[in-house]
Amino acid sequence: MEVLHTIAEDGDRIVILDQTRLPRETVFVSLSSLDQAAHAIRSMQVRGAPLIGVTAAYGVALGLTVEADDRHLEQALAVLAATRPTAVNLHWALARMAEVLRPLAPAQRRSAAWDEARTIATADEATNAAIGRHGLPLMATIHDGRWRAEPATVNVMTHCNAGWLATVAHGTALAPVYAAQAAGMPLHVWVSETRPRNQGLLTAWELAAADVPHTLIADNAAGLLMMQGRVDCVIVGADRIAANGDVANKVGTYLKALAAKAHNIPFYVAAPLSTIDFDCPNGISIPIEERSGDEFGDLGLAATPRANPAFDVTPAHLISGIVTERGVHAPQDIASFKP
Amino acid sequence: MEVLHTIAEDGDRIVILDQTRLPRETVFVSLSSLDQAAHAIRSMQVRGAPLIGVTAAYGVALGLTVEADDRHLEQALAVLAATRPTAVNLHWALARMAEVLRPLAPAQRRSAAWDEARTIATADEATNAAIGRHGLPLMATIHDGRWRAEPATVNVMTHCNAGWLATVAHGTALAPVYAAQAAGMPLHVWVSETRPRNQGLLTAWELAAADVPHTLIADNAAGLLMMQGRVDCVIVGADRIAANGDVANKVGTYLKALAAKAHNIPFYVAAPLSTIDFDCPNGISIPIEERSGDEFGDLGLAATPRANPAFDVTPAHLISGIVTERGVHAPQDIASFKP
Repeated sequence: MEVLHTIAEDGDRIVILDQTRLPRETVFVSLSSLDQAAHAIRSMQVRGAPLIGVTAAYGVALGLTVEADDRHLEQALAVLAATRPTAVNLHWALARMAEVLRPLAPAQRRSAAWDEARTIATADEATNAAIGRHGLPLMATIHDGRWRAEPATVNVMTHCNAGWLATVAHGTALAPVYAAQAAGMPLHVWVSETRPRNQGLLTAWELAAADVPHTLIADNAAGLLMMQGRVDCVIVGADRIAANGDVANKVGTYLKALAAKAHNIPFYVAAPLSTIDFDCPNGISIPIEERSGDEFGDLGLAATPRANPAFDVTPAHLISGIVTERGVHAPQDIASFKP
Repeated sequence: MEVLHTIAEDGDRIVILDQTRLPRETVFVSLSSLDQAAHAIRSMQVRGAPLIGVTAAYGVALGLTVEADDRHLEQALAVLAATRPTAVNLHWALARMAEVLRPLAPAQRRSAAWDEARTIATADEATNAAIGRHGLPLMATIHDGRWRAEPATVNVMTHCNAGWLATVAHGTALAPVYAAQAAGMPLHVWVSETRPRNQGLLTAWELAAADVPHTLIADNAAGLLMMQGRVDCVIVGADRIAANGDVANKVGTYLKALAAKAHNIPFYVAAPLSTIDFDCPNGISIPIEERSGDEFGDLGLAATPRANPAFDVTPAHLISGIVTERGVHAPQDIASFKP
C-alpha cells in the first residue's frame, strides 16, 4: 500500500488529502491561509475528530503567517472554533495552541505555532497506535472463543470512518482492527454506508487498501445482521465524550448501539482522551451540528424540506467500554482522567 | 392533486406507474404478458406488498392470454411466485387465483382471472380505507394530549413507502396519516430516505402532492429525533406478519422499532390481514430477500463486496399495535384471525 498522509507540512503550507474526492480520486490540496484551513474543515475535505483537531492547530499557524499579533491570533482561534460545533478535539487543540501562544511575543509565535501543531500531530499518531494495542485484546477475546462457540472469523461492525483517514495515522476505531490484522487474526468488517455523506466509502477504501476483508451494507441493515448473529462486536469512534460517558458520534451510531444492546453484542468506542469534554456533564449538553440538506444531493423533490443532523448521542449505559491511549475504561470511569 | 393510479386495466393489458422513475418522472408502462408482469415486480417498477399482490393477480390473467390450459396456469403461478420471496401478499393473491381458476375449464379461465384480479384490486382499496379509519384514533389520542403535554402537531415517523404508491389506493401506513389530514389534524411526517432503494423519496413525493407537511431525513437520524422528543409515533407497513406477531418489513424498520421502544414511543404496523402468514410461526422463519449490491450504485469501490438484505424482522414485543381492516390488535392476537 502506497503511504499517503491525511495531513503533512510543505514549507509554510500544509497539504491535505481531499476526502470529498475519495474514493474515486486521490487529490491533495495545499492550504496556505487561515481561511483555507477553516474551509477545509467546514467542507469536510478533512474530517474525523482527531484530524479536525490537528488541522485546526496548523490552521492557527497559517493564521499567523502575515501578522502574529494578538488580534490575528484571537481571530484565528475564533474562526477555527466556529467551523464545526460537535467535535471537541477541535476546541482541545485550539486551547492548547492558545495556551502556548498567548504568553509569547508576536515575533516568537509563528515558529512556536508550527512546533506545537507538529507536536499535536505526532502525538495523535502515537495515541492511536496505543488505542490499537489496547483494543486488540478485546478482539482476541472474541477470537479465542469466550463469546461464541466457533469464532473463526471476528466480525466487526463499524460506522462512519474512524480509520487513518480520520486521524494522522492508524485511526481510532480501526486501530484495533489494523492491529488484529497485523497479528494475523481472521477478521471481517461490516461497513455502513453512513448517509448522507457516505463516509463508509472512506472506510471501505481504507480497508480494501489494507487487505482487510469487509462488506459494504446500507445503514439500515445493521439490526438484521446483529439479529442473525453475524456481528461479534461494534467499534466506533467519537466526536465528543461527556463526563458521564455519553458519546456523540456520527448520526446513526445510537441506532447501532441500541441494536447491539438488544443482542448482547459488545459495543466499544475508541477515541483519544482529547475527545473527552470534562466540562460537559452529559450527552444532552453536547451541541449537535445541523448541516445543509443539500448533502442529500439533488433528489427531484423541490417541495420537500430536509433535516440533516450530523451526530447523535449514545448513552453511556449502551457502551461496553471506551478504548483510549490509556486502556479500556468503563464509561462511568472516564471522568477520572480529568487533568 | 391529479388522480394517478398505481395500476389500472387497459383492455387486455394493465398499465402501471413505473415507480423506478419517480420522483423525477411520471411514466406509465403497459404490461401485456406474464413475463412483463414478473419483470415489473422483480425490478420494483411496482413495489409494496399489497400492490405486488394485485400485480401478481393481474399477471396470472396476462399469463392466460394465449392459452389457458393447466400448463399455462401453473406456469403463471410459478413464475410470479418466484419474483420476490418476502412479501406474503404475493402468495396470498396467487393462492386466491389458483383456488378460483384451477377448478374451471380453460375456456372459462381467462375472464374469471380478470374478474378475480379486479376483485382483489377493489378489495385492496376498501381494506386500506378501513386501515385509515382504524388508525386515525391512534393519532387522535396523541393529538388530544394523552401522550404529551403540548401536542399541537402530531409528529409521525414512517419508513420506506407504505403509501398509496404501495397499494391500489390510500396506502397502509399512510392511510391513517391521510385520514388525519382529511380530519384537519395538524400533522408532520418524518420521512426516512430508506437506502439503498430510496423509497422514502416516493413517500415524500406522495406527501408533497397531498400537502402533508413532512421532512426528509437520513435513515441514521431516526434515533436522535426520538431522543430529542421530536417523534410522537412510528407507523410502518409490513411485507409479512408471522403468526406470533413478528413483522418483516423494509430493512431498517427494526432499528426504528428498537429506538421507539427505548423512548416509549408507540410503534404501529399497518397492514391488511392478507399480510399475515398464519403458517409462519415467527419472524425467524420469514425468508429475507437478498437483492443485488448493484442497488447501491457505482461507488468507485471495485474491491469492496456488498450485502443488500431488503427486509428485517421486528419482534412482536416491540410493536404497540397492528392496524388492519378489522381494527387495532395486539401482535399476539393476530393469530386469532386465521380463517
